[in-house]
Amino acid sequence: MSPASSSLHPLSPPRRLLMGPGPSNIHPRVYRALGMDVVGHLDPEFLAVMDRIQDRLRQVFQTENPMTISVSGTGSAGMEAALVNLIEEGEEYIVGMNGVFGMRMSEVIRRRGATVHPIEKEWGEIITLEEVQKAIEDHPKSSGLCLVHAETSTGAHQPLEEIGRLTQERDLLFIVDAVTSFAGAELKIDDWSIDACYSGTQKCLSCPPGLAPLTLSPRAMEKVRNRKSPIDSWYLDLTLIDNYWAEGKRAYHHTAPISMNYAIHEALALVLEEGLEQRFERHRLNSKAMVSGLEAMGFSMSISDASQRLPMLNPVSIPEGIPDAEVRKRLLEQFNIEIGAGLGAFSGKIWRIGLMGESSKQEHVIFFLAALESVLNDLKIQGDFSGGVSAANSVYSS
Amino acid sequence: MSPASSSLHPLSPPRRLLMGPGPSNIHPRVYRALGMDVVGHLDPEFLAVMDRIQDRLRQVFQTENPMTISVSGTGSAGMEAALVNLIEEGEEYIVGMNGVFGMRMSEVIRRRGATVHPIEKEWGEIITLEEVQKAIEDHPKSSGLCLVHAETSTGAHQPLEEIGRLTQERDLLFIVDAVTSFAGAELKIDDWSIDACYSGTQKCLSCPPGLAPLTLSPRAMEKVRNRKSPIDSWYLDLTLIDNYWAEGKRAYHHTAPISMNYAIHEALALVLEEGLEQRFERHRLNSKAMVSGLEAMGFSMSISDASQRLPMLNPVSIPEGIPDAEVRKRLLEQFNIEIGAGLGAFSGKIWRIGLMGESSKQEHVIFFLAALESVLNDLKIQGDFSGGVSAANSVYSS
Repeated sequence: MSPASSSLHPLSPPRRLLMGPGPSNIHPRVYRALGMDVVGHLDPEFLAVMDRIQDRLRQVFQTENPMTISVSGTGSAGMEAALVNLIEEGEEYIVGMNGVFGMRMSEVIRRRGATVHPIEKEWGEIITLEEVQKAIEDHPKSSGLCLVHAETSTGAHQPLEEIGRLTQERDLLFIVDAVTSFAGAELKIDDWSIDACYSGTQKCLSCPPGLAPLTLSPRAMEKVRNRKSPIDSWYLDLTLIDNYWAEGKRAYHHTAPISMNYAIHEALALVLEEGLEQRFERHRLNSKAMVSGLEAMGFSMSISDASQRLPMLNPVSIPEGIPDAEVRKRLLEQFNIEIGAGLGAFSGKIWRIGLMGESSKQEHVIFFLAALESVLNDLKIQGDFSGGVSAANSVYSS
Repeated sequence: MSPASSSLHPLSPPRRLLMGPGPSNIHPRVYRALGMDVVGHLDPEFLAVMDRIQDRLRQVFQTENPMTISVSGTGSAGMEAALVNLIEEGEEYIVGMNGVFGMRMSEVIRRRGATVHPIEKEWGEIITLEEVQKAIEDHPKSSGLCLVHAETSTGAHQPLEEIGRLTQERDLLFIVDAVTSFAGAELKIDDWSIDACYSGTQKCLSCPPGLAPLTLSPRAMEKVRNRKSPIDSWYLDLTLIDNYWAEGKRAYHHTAPISMNYAIHEALALVLEEGLEQRFERHRLNSKAMVSGLEAMGFSMSISDASQRLPMLNPVSIPEGIPDAEVRKRLLEQFNIEIGAGLGAFSGKIWRIGLMGESSKQEHVIFFLAALESVLNDLKIQGDFSGGVSAANSVYSS
């Protein structure tokens, strides 16, 4: 051993139960894929992996869009890729603003020199069809509408189908953030007339963070290819990236993250083996059990209408007298359970309890409720927290 | 097994010897790091990993720059991060243009609305101190100089030390692409007055592609923080990313690629355990043996002066009568060896034989020379190719 090595701290991360806003837990097959032999990014074997990733992404996005890829960056890079390619200086976009990620889309759009017409709602509320209609009437020059399908900061579950039909009628681009919903809840790119949609790998896909599933409709790609101004970003230029991913072209642009693409290849296989409908139903069922358990313990969900609440990220109000940070710290240190804190305006006010992908399992729901009961009792919080586990179990046995 | 699963192709990549322009081969410890349990990106355990990555990156970059991080994208994202944060519309930059990656820097600079003053040289040649001096005199309003330390398209090894001193005297920002040299050849950020430098993980660091080591001097960060215009990119905005990486801040920006950061954490440990000087010497020695072997077989290096040629990416001219693609195909299919084709203007004219990180080993040099001899004989190429292995071996025994 050389002298230097003695000071090098070895890597030995703890085994957490990941019930926050992502990353979620990872299936052993995905870990094994990560450790498989790296080959060259233009190796015929890797090109075949890329083909299969595209095919599998199309199945999960429920689309036939040729431009369907994994962007070589995290979910936020997927957002930036969708927006910087489509949006030109001087254009106008309507953006739903009811949480952190609508604000983030606005920020990216403004940096492109375009105007944002926000539809502002209270955090946790959804944007209605009528509100979109009004915004389109108020801002008739708008080029598109941006909505967040699954608002990770609030747990709001935005309906898209009717709004998609409307944007199609009015010839508006429909751009959707599906970072948290992809592979965990119904998302039909073609049926819902979505023109651009991006996600991340570390949510319901249960793959480590580092890639961004992205799909653009032929109509959206036509706009990208016929821009008046060049795309600001070279790294995220979809005309160049298309030449890299398109079968028969494979023109070098950048070196794809090989191991991460192995991981998404395997994670997508797990999704398709389970079946989309079965997977969505599993997310709904575990959420229902979690909510029953929490309510039996005296908690309230911060979004009361289950149809407007995400099944994979359950937002629960923190009652007066319960110390937010201390509870999360004890869950982490005593039970190796991570849950999500409130973000932005919701800091200290809600917990975000993730049940995404591999994390969405009956045993995790039960273990979490028991652990929370234990922590609250240890902290001598007033109340009877004993009913959570049995309330959750009765959902599974009904 | 559900019906869908029967059609899902399993992942089973071949075990290649990676002797192209990257990715290079990966140490088993790095594969094991990739497969370790993912934790949350704000988990105290992961924050400690980030701290150690920064510390290790600083040691390999030989810098004390606080802004030293792994960008959540590939080497090209590192390039874009360095340039989009520093460069403002209307500015002028001098760029060395002697291969693909100087051209790429120019392209990114032009997309920002800045002017490029190229120092054009033949591909494979280096840029001299005198040429930089003249360019600065010709373009006195320039804000900076951009050079590629290790031009991956040609194998040219650009000297930086004296040029760094000059840019410092003339108060120019010095921006360096070290994608292929980082952790494989001497690179002294502070001593050489480099203001911004980026790399990739899949070259001499022998980590899978997917992250970009990046460092900026305090002077460069001051320019970033005092820009007149906002940074175009939200994803690569170093003022936001700094708040995410800086100890004691850790403000959420995006979700870092956890597994890839585990991998770079381990790959950097391997570099520091070996020792920088020892590692650079290993790269030089294996390159010397490879070149001796190739020359004994009758090949010529496309850059004849060893001091101007990269030790980790050895550019060799393809003689008339040797079928480029067929030789590479046979090396890949019969021997599982990948070497690099020529890029751009050098397509069909050179091979780029990588000896990077874990790929830079005596046994690989010998195996490659023997495999090449075998392929050339099988193809009935005229010549005596039998002297390669012994010429290489005599370098090791001298």
